[in-house]
Parts: sequence; structure tokens; C-alpha cells
Amino acid sequence: MKALVLESVKKLSVRDYPINETAGPYDVKIQIKACGICGSDIHYYLEGAIGDFVVKEPMILGHEAAGIILEKGEQVNHLAVGDLVCMEPGIPSAFSPEALSGNYNLDPDVVFWATPPVHGCLRETVVHPARFCFKLPRGLSAAEGAMMEPLAIGIEAAKKGRITPGDTALVIGAGAIGTLAAVSASAGGCSRVFISDVKEEKLSIAGSYPNVVPINTGKADLADTVMKETGGRGVDLIIEASGSPKVYPGFFRCAKRGGKAVLVGMMNGTVPIDVALLQGRGISIETIFRYTNAFDRAAALVSAGKIDIKRLISKTFAFADAVAAYEYAAAGHPDVVKVMIELA
Amino acid sequence: MKALVLESVKKLSVRDYPINETAGPYDVKIQIKACGICGSDIHYYLEGAIGDFVVKEPMILGHEAAGIILEKGEQVNHLAVGDLVCMEPGIPSAFSPEALSGNYNLDPDVVFWATPPVHGCLRETVVHPARFCFKLPRGLSAAEGAMMEPLAIGIEAAKKGRITPGDTALVIGAGAIGTLAAVSASAGGCSRVFISDVKEEKLSIAGSYPNVVPINTGKADLADTVMKETGGRGVDLIIEASGSPKVYPGFFRCAKRGGKAVLVGMMNGTVPIDVALLQGRGISIETIFRYTNAFDRAAALVSAGKIDIKRLISKTFAFADAVAAYEYAAAGHPDVVKVMIELA
Amino acid sequence: MKALVLESVKKLSVRDYPINETAGPYDVKIQIKACGICGSDIHYYLEGAIGDFVVKEPMILGHEAAGIILEKGEQVNHLAVGDLVCMEPGIPSAFSPEALSGNYNLDPDVVFWATPPVHGCLRETVVHPARFCFKLPRGLSAAEGAMMEPLAIGIEAAKKGRITPGDTALVIGAGAIGTLAAVSASAGGCSRVFISDVKEEKLSIAGSYPNVVPINTGKADLADTVMKETGGRGVDLIIEASGSPKVYPGFFRCAKRGGKAVLVGMMNGTVPIDVALLQGRGISIETIFRYTNAFDRAAALVSAGKIDIKRLISKTFAFADAVAAYEYAAAGHPDVVKVMIELA
Amino acid sequence: MKALVLESVKKLSVRDYPINETAGPYDVKIQIKACGICGSDIHYYLEGAIGDFVVKEPMILGHEAAGIILEKGEQVNHLAVGDLVCMEPGIPSAFSPEALSGNYNLDPDVVFWATPPVHGCLRETVVHPARFCFKLPRGLSAAEGAMMEPLAIGIEAAKKGRITPGDTALVIGAGAIGTLAAVSASAGGCSRVFISDVKEEKLSIAGSYPNVVPINTGKADLADTVMKETGGRGVDLIIEASGSPKVYPGFFRCAKRGGKAVLVGMMNGTVPIDVALLQGRGISIETIFRYTNAFDRAAALVSAGKIDIKRLISKTFAFADAVAAYEYAAAGHPDVVKVMIELA
Repeated sequence: MKALVLESVKKLSVRDYPINETAGPYDVKIQIKACGICGSDIHYYLEGAIGDFVVKEPMILGHEAAGIILEKGEQVNHLAVGDLVCMEPGIPSAFSPEALSGNYNLDPDVVFWATPPVHGCLRETVVHPARFCFKLPRGLSAAEGAMMEPLAIGIEAAKKGRITPGDTALVIGAGAIGTLAAVSASAGGCSRVFISDVKEEKLSIAGSYPNVVPINTGKADLADTVMKETGGRGVDLIIEASGSPKVYPGFFRCAKRGGKAVLVGMMNGTVPIDVALLQGRGISIETIFRYTNAFDRAAALVSAGKIDIKRLISKTFAFADAVAAYEYAAAGHPDVVKVMIELA
Repeated sequence: MKALVLESVKKLSVRDYPINETAGPYDVKIQIKACGICGSDIHYYLEGAIGDFVVKEPMILGHEAAGIILEKGEQVNHLAVGDLVCMEPGIPSAFSPEALSGNYNLDPDVVFWATPPVHGCLRETVVHPARFCFKLPRGLSAAEGAMMEPLAIGIEAAKKGRITPGDTALVIGAGAIGTLAAVSASAGGCSRVFISDVKEEKLSIAGSYPNVVPINTGKADLADTVMKETGGRGVDLIIEASGSPKVYPGFFRCAKRGGKAVLVGMMNGTVPIDVALLQGRGISIETIFRYTNAFDRAAALVSAGKIDIKRLISKTFAFADAVAAYEYAAAGHPDVVKVMIELA
Repeated sequence: MKALVLESVKKLSVRDYPINETAGPYDVKIQIKACGICGSDIHYYLEGAIGDFVVKEPMILGHEAAGIILEKGEQVNHLAVGDLVCMEPGIPSAFSPEALSGNYNLDPDVVFWATPPVHGCLRETVVHPARFCFKLPRGLSAAEGAMMEPLAIGIEAAKKGRITPGDTALVIGAGAIGTLAAVSASAGGCSRVFISDVKEEKLSIAGSYPNVVPINTGKADLADTVMKETGGRGVDLIIEASGSPKVYPGFFRCAKRGGKAVLVGMMNGTVPIDVALLQGRGISIETIFRYTNAFDRAAALVSAGKIDIKRLISKTFAFADAVAAYEYAAAGHPDVVKVMIELA
Repeated sequence: MKALVLESVKKLSVRDYPINETAGPYDVKIQIKACGICGSDIHYYLEGAIGDFVVKEPMILGHEAAGIILEKGEQVNHLAVGDLVCMEPGIPSAFSPEALSGNYNLDPDVVFWATPPVHGCLRETVVHPARFCFKLPRGLSAAEGAMMEPLAIGIEAAKKGRITPGDTALVIGAGAIGTLAAVSASAGGCSRVFISDVKEEKLSIAGSYPNVVPINTGKADLADTVMKETGGRGVDLIIEASGSPKVYPGFFRCAKRGGKAVLVGMMNGTVPIDVALLQGRGISIETIFRYTNAFDRAAALVSAGKIDIKRLISKTFAFADAVAAYEYAAAGHPDVVKVMIELA
């Protein structure tokens, strides 16, 4: 079948790739209709590796996708042929200790699309366990469905933030993940969500959402601004989504006494934290790693009109132009959130 | 000063009532601008008692109020003269075991407005501890401010529901409290909130809110409808707000496996529950009693546009017509949610 | 192989039963060394059914067991041939929504030993998924290992009680499950655990454990006694383990304001609860259904010396005498907690 | 009255100090019977300051105390003259936002004994709010009662660890606080608690408690040892109690996937943490600052025999020899945990 293949570093092609998959009794076969480009796809494209994960042989990219069910296994009851579904790309081992305790994302044996040596799903069809496929509510398009994967990260951050209705939040970093975390925190019950960045283009997209308040930290001091806006108390929840070591440990000063921080942004090496500050303010820290049980929540909130996800699809390419789509995404335009590829 | 006095059962008057209050160092003196009528006010008016609380002497009614700060004690720093504030009507003892553990609402020594023998606040001015007064965000009116007290109950129900973003909920009973719980659950992160009642007028008000889905249980089976709408899984959260023993134990069948129920509706006597059903579905039960730390959350969500509270103020009377207002509220029109009294 | 077979109601035999099992890649084959008799085994023996679960064909009984690994599948890394293990008897479907959220016990498709039409494990060998087998810490016997299944229920009750160190608890019912819940609550951080029953023999066994305080409710009023012992405040946690409808709704009066109740005892029909009491005291209710991730915790606490489990093995029979063992267990001696069958 | 006065840096005296206190309606007057010496007392003694808290005038030291009630205010019902009580040394403002949310320890206006300019309680009598005095269970001595304050820190660490029965824990640092955290974690439901240090004397005291397993990190690699002892999984809970920046970020590698760390040790400046490690293992971080609602829990666990606190009172001095006691404590003998002063 046709697929977008990373042949080697910086070399992509859309070409026939031999894959022979059969749906087992608990699987479905899906015709891919839309697939977004993720930062990790770009990393593999440009550098051939992320940390210890090195692309050694041609690998199909893509893990943010939606499509239509072509076939289903005999044990699959909750889905039907013809359903438009989005797919959770990581499959844990069934009964690992992590899976049995509800943290299946932490299972070290998770098999995840487009993580070498596992192929991704930017191709004509893919076979996937049915329990990791989620029927999209009526009215959602395939491209919106493909957005559920990055949105799931925002939802996971909001989940870990254990939001109490009316909380205030601060998101550090207005990139795709930061913006998705901000809209998730708002949909998840926050009354106001501040979001900080130095790029005005990014802030203006995030700030176009109701209750999301941009702070340009190139122009204003973050802690001063947050304290002023919150009557000197600070925010209930901070979501660090920049992945920039430079924001540590300063942003913790924006937290309310008894507040929480959720660390989403990934980075190499260590960052400094001020333990005495955390103690004196009673700040707790959560982290996220991908997500659990978040896709149907994401879709429900989009379907409810609580998250407008279409606004974040900046540009759409046809499958035949997938290489151009990757080049466009790799260029890093500050006003581009998500590049989408649609398949006929 | 002028006050709305319950002279005896079914006898109300607006008249001068001698009250001489001075604000202590931690208090403020407030000019009352708006005060709503609560079901408990109507109970005292019509029956002279609620359970063990019996009105034995003339008592000023009213505990849902907002007003303007006239004076403040010397230790009050977070409020200023001229601020428009809403007030939490119950004051715990300072260091009771319940207060020290964050459950100050459970302190048996709480002093609560318009609960005999304590006077309410439907009068010209009132002195109140400043920490139980909350400055209203810009743009909110005094009447909206007076709605924070009943809304706080809805917020408390949503808090106790520990909503995960995207949850579904079912509220039993579309009276004032049920409707406020439904909009609170929606604002608190639910993607869809079903609400059930047999009165079409009430359902149509509740159903006018986005994502609130009315179910007329006079016309359709509750569990069947909920199961059909949720793909056979049930809702994550049920909020019982009818206070009707008849809904027990049936509504628990609408809960998802691992779901929660929050019991808000109050009633005398016992109700039947099916322990085996709760166990087999892993349902947990929370209750609420008034609220804790909910007023500023309520105001923040209204100010954010997440809860339209004005829609629930059905009719407004002048202070001089307060007796007529009580009679109107006592009539129990099915399309009336809240009757408001405004003071010049 | 030899097995204890329930041929029909009240008819048991130890006889050859044809079973042909092979360990798959994720399974182990276990030689059974000890198997306890559970109340549910006795129900099937005497009545042939529990609720909708009806024994229609000869069925091997037993689900509380420990044994030695004879073979292991090639994907099994955490266990070795020769290990003494206890086994969790219920296997969920791998990726059910309940399993993915950490509530695998609530999966309606759980396959559970000795629940018709599934055979139990009171036989020479059994094949089981390795992830549901737990290596016993050094020093534990097979009979102690077989106790991990009923103890897991006590542990689950303690888990759901979310004990804060130093809490007080009250267990209703001093049968096997109540006693196991009491010792679990004590091992789980409670400073004192009251346990109530009317049978002195049962109370004296439970009361032989440190920090477990028996209350004979045939001789003293439960709420009065608990309130007196707790300085009028009540207990932090109540575990209902009697399964007797008669204890409802009285026992809730023993809870502290802000306390919790965990309902463990199973029964048919409904029981009365007093919603106003729950609300006024801020009591929340949890339920348990079997257990999750509890076997290794149970074994660790026994190995640590925090739970003396041997004391509860009242009498031991050889496999050849298994029918006599069942008759003995069915007789319901008040001083018998657990009857154990050992296999050579 | 006689008091232990810090006259200036390194200058202590036991002398008459004029204090004139009257018990208000919610207060009690206590005759001090025992008072321990805390690390913070030694800091003020040797350096005259801790961070921004500088001793500018003569100040009475001591905040770990127990004594007998001499008088009580008219509103005090839960205590009686003659009761032996321990005292929580920090009093929050009554209705601060932190106090109302159950985090009264985080109130910036807490008034705390022996924190300049507030006098401590190493003197003949002291007046204190009755709600912060806790009657000791029968059988506990005044010296044991004085240990409740440091033990409360251990209890708070265990509380924040949200221990599930059977968890494993690792405590970093076997000083007084680390040892108290270890015994609290064990009493709070852990099956095994590892404790690490480089000083053998300290490890041997901590290791004398059942289920507390010492690891000398001068002789063995911490992570290797913990992983070996836990079957390669790591511990559920880490409590950092050394306050040494050098242990960061290494100790996080000892945590189980989904584990927790509680930071107790205080230090100046920042420490390095590895965000990617926290994320990949799903580790969350809590901090503690003093304690909330911990004294009665501490006393209940000591009274229950779950924590032997006497073992940690290394040496006792008479009040007349209080200066010698401070000199002895300041010498920092590695086998000394707590130095106690007893008053006649």
C-alpha cells in the first residue's frame, strides 16, 4: 500500500510499502482518512532519532490519525464497519502491573506507532486493537478526529491538574501542546487560563479562545502579571508546556498556596527547582506521559462545543503532497499549530 | 433599620427592627442591595420551623444576598469600602476540628443567617466577618451576586463529583438546586449533563443551557434513556437534587461502572438503596451539606461567561414589596426559579 | 486429574476429572498445594446457585489457593519454575474500559474460578495467566498463601477506606471477612479498630489481634459504645462486613463528621439509609467488589509480621478428605474462621 | 517565671523572665513538664537566625512540649484541669483562605513558638488556644508527649504519601526527622521502609524498628540496592528527609512507575531534577510544611504501640541544666536523636 516512508535522515517519500496485516478477533482494519504531523515526526525526519529511539530502517511515520472501519474482528461489539474513528496509537501489554493499576501509559512495553522500530499509520490502511479505536461523535470530521491525539495530551494535563470548578490556571508555552492544554483546562472547569510565551503569533492564537489570557513574557514579568491578575494569590494550577529549561524554577512563584504544577514539556538534562519555595507554598507536582483514557473525553468535549479544535488545523495537504507537508511543518512558522494530511 | 420580619407563622412584615451592630476589627458593614428568597425562607414563613429549628420570636429572613461595603475593620485588607460583595451566610467556630480539617461546613456550631434564633440579612445593613464576604468580579450586578449563595450549592455538588474533563452527568430534579447543579457540572468540565423531572416548565428552563439535556420521566424511562444516550455505559456522575424518596434506588442504575453519586436533595426518613447494585458497579456516594470555599468559584465562573445566572432570576420585587415577593415565591409557580428582592 | 467436584446440589466427590490444559506463552502451570473453603463454595455446595449463577453441570470448586509453578510460558519473566505462588482467581478481558481505568474487577466479562460454568482450582494442577500469580515472600507456607484471596478482600476494604495514619475504624460483623477487614485496617494505619458482632466466639478471635477492640452488640449499644470510646467524635472509617440488612441505617451514627463507610457485606434487596444523617455528618460511602492489585500487598503485610494470618486457619484437612472438609465448613461452627485443604 | 532565654547568639541562660499571660475564654494555661530540643532551636542558639527570621531581642526557646492544664477558659469543653496535653506550636489566623481550605499550616500569618519575635515555651507555664492542645492517651509520659511535635512531621510526611496498605517506602536520611518519617510510614501501612544514610550510628537506631531496613550509601549504591530488594520495581513512596542537595536528582530513580516522592528536608538554593525521568515513570511530588491535624494521630499511634517513641529520647536533662542540654544537643553526637528537658 501507499505510505509516507522515512527512508533515512531528511529523506521522505510517498511510495508503495509492503505491509500485510490481518485483523484478529479483537482488531479492526481502518482506512486512514486524515493524519496530523507531530513534533516527534519532525524529529525523526530531521534527526533520525529521539533519545534512544533511533530509526535504523525505513519507517512509516504518523500517529495522529482518524479513519473509517473497513473490517472488524468477531469479538468486536462496540464498533461497526463504516464508523469514523480516531485511534490511540500506543498499546500496552495486557496485564502488566502498570496496566492493571490504570497507568497503562507507563508500561515499558507499550508499542507505539512511528516509534522505531514500529511503523506509523500514515498509509492507506492499518490494523489496530478495537479497544484503542474511538467512534467519533456525529458532526466531527476525520481531520478533527486526527486532532484527538494531540488534544489527548492537553486533556491528560487537565486531568492530572484535578481541577476544582472555578480554578485559575497558568500554562507556560503557547505552542501546540500548551494551547491544547489551555483549552483543555478551560473546558475542564477553569474560570480563567493564563498562557505565557514570547511569540506574539502563538499568543494570539491561544488568546483567541474565550477565557484564555495571553501574557507576553518578552514584555511583562510573568509572576508580577499573574499575581496582579489574581489579587496577589496566584493560580491554582500551573501547566508547564514549553519544555524550556529556562522557565525553571521561576514559574513556581505563580502558584497559589496549596497549588499544583503539572509538568508536560519534555527536555533533556536536569532543571533547577527551589524545594523551600515548594514547601512554603505547599505546591505539589504531577507529570504526564502521553495519556490514559483520554480520547473519548477529548471527542466528547469537542462535540459539546467546549473545545473548538478546527481552529488549530493551520494548513491541510493531500496525501500525494505529504513530503511537502512535512517540509512545511518542519519550517516552524510561528503561526502554524497543526499541519494535516488528508487521504482520499 | 427596615427589615423583613417573620412575626409568626404566615405573618410577615417590612418594618423597623432595632438592630445595633458594630463592625469589629475583622468585620465589614454591608449595605444590602439584593436578597433572594430560598426554599428554607418559605418553609419558615409557611410552617415556622424546619426540623428542630423552630422560630419562637420575630426573626429577620434572608440569607442569599449581596451589597456594598460601608465600613471595614482595621484588620481587613482584602476588601475596600465601596466594594460590591456577596456573603457566605454561615460562620463556623474558628478552630473546631471540622474547620481545621477543611470541613468547616460540618462544624455543629456554625452560625447561619435566618436559622433560628439567628437573624437573616433582608434588612438595610448587616455586619459580617470580612473573610466570608467576596468581592464580585466587575460586571456582575447585586442581584447576580445574591445568586452566588444558591449557586454555591451547585458548585459544591460539582466539586464533590470530582469531575474528570469530559465526564457525563445526570441530575435528578430540575428545581432551582437541580438546575444550578446541572450548570455547575457543565461549567465544571462535563461534556453533557442530563437532567430529569416530570415538570416540562422546569425542564425547559434547565434545557435552555448548552449541553444540558432534559429527560421528562413522565414520558420516558430514565435508565433506558440514559443508557441509550451513553452507548449503554451510563453516566460518570449522578447528582440527586430532587429530595424525593421515590427516585431511590432506581437512579443508581444510570451510573457507569466506577461512577459516583452525589446526594444533594434533603428529606426526612430513610430511603432504600441496593447495596449489591452499588458494589457490582463500583459506585461511590458523596453527600453535600451547604458548601465550603465555593462563593469565589461561583462568581469566577459567572464572570467567565461559563454560567449564565441572570436567566434564573424569574421575577424581581422592590424591598417595600417584600411580603408580596414571599407570597409570589410561596405560590410555587413551576416556571419560577428564583424570586429576587432589590433594595434601593 | 483428581479434583473436588460438585456433582449436583449437596453432592460432592473427590474423583478423576478430565482436564487437559496447556500453558500458553503468558501462562504458568501450577501444582496446587493448599486451597481454602469460601462461603461462596458452601453456597454452591448447599444450594447449587448464587443469584443468577447456577451450577448446571459438574463443576470443580475452590478459588482460594496456592501452589508451585511446574511450567511457565516463554513470555513469563517474573516467575520461575519451583516458585510458591498464590493466585488471583478472576481474569478480566484485557482492554475493557474498566480494565483500562484500573477497575478491572468491575469488568462484566471477568472469568472467575468456581463461578459456573468456570471450574475452580481444587485439583492437582491448574493453568493460569502468570500476571495473576504472585510469588510468596520467603517464609510463607502454601496454606498461608491460600489465605491471600480472602485477605485481599480485607485489603481492598482498607484501600477503599483511604486510611490516614492514626484513623480509628469500626468493622460491623466479626465473620471471616469482617475479621480480615479489621486486621487489614489495623495494618493499613489505623490506631484502633472496633469490631462488632453478637457472637462471643467470633469477637474473641477478632479481639485477639492487637488494637482490635470487640463490641458485643447483644450486650451494649453500638453507637453509645463507639462514641464513648472516641470522646464523642465517632470513627473515621466504618467497614460494613456483616451483610445483614438489620444493621442499616444505624451504624452510620458511629461515623465522625467527614467520615467514610465502605460497604463490603453483600445482600439481596434494599436497605434503608438516612440521607439527612449522611449529609449532616458529611459521610461518604464506598463499596468494594472483590479486589484489584491486592494479593502482593496482602502477602507483603503478612511477611512483614503486620498481619498474623495463620491464626485464622481453624482446621486443616487432606485432599482425600475434602468432602469431610466441606461438611465441616458447612456446619458453621462459630469459632471456625477458615477451613483449609492441603494437597500433597 | 523561670525560662530558658536565648540572650544573644551562643548565649543562653535559665533565668526569671517577666511574662504575664491570662487565659482567654478559648485558652488553657499549661504547666510545662517536658520540652525537647529541635534542630531549629540549635540554629537560633548557634547562629541567631534561620533565613529571614532573626533573633533581635532575648527570646525564650522551645516548641516541642507537653504539660498539665492549670486553668481553662469558659468556652473550653474538650479539656479539663489536670489533663496532660501536648501542644501544637503554630496558630493560624482563624479564617484565612488557607485555614478555610484545610491548609492552615500554609497561612503566612501563622504565629509559631520560638520563631522570632514569638517566645517559645521552655518556661514554667504557657497560655495556648485549647484547640491546639491535645490530651495524651493514658500511659503516655510528658516526655513522650513532647515528642509528638517532631513525630507530627513524620506523620505529615506519611499522610502526604497517601500510603496504600502494603506499600514500600524509602526514606532518605536517618536523622531525627528521617527516622520519625520511617516509623510513621511503617505505622501508616507500609510493609517495608528502607532508610538510607552514611552514618552507621543513625542507621542502627532507625534499623532497630521492625520493618525498617537500613541502607548505608557509603557502602552500597542506593538505587541498585532498592531495585534488588523490590524485584526491580522500585518503591511506592520516597520521603526525602536529609535536606542534602547532593541526593538530588539520584533518589528519584528508586521510585516505582506511578510512585510518589514527599520532600521533607529543607535547604537553601535550588536542586536539580530530571523532568524526563519523572515523566517516564509517572512520579508525582508532594511537599510538607510543618503539619496539619497530626498531633492526635501521632499520640494515637504511640498509644496503640505502633510507634515506640521513647527509644528516640537519647538523653534527659533537668530544667536547671537546660543550658548544658543545649550544649549537648549542639555537639551533634551521631547516636543522639532527641535531647529532652524535664521540668519538675
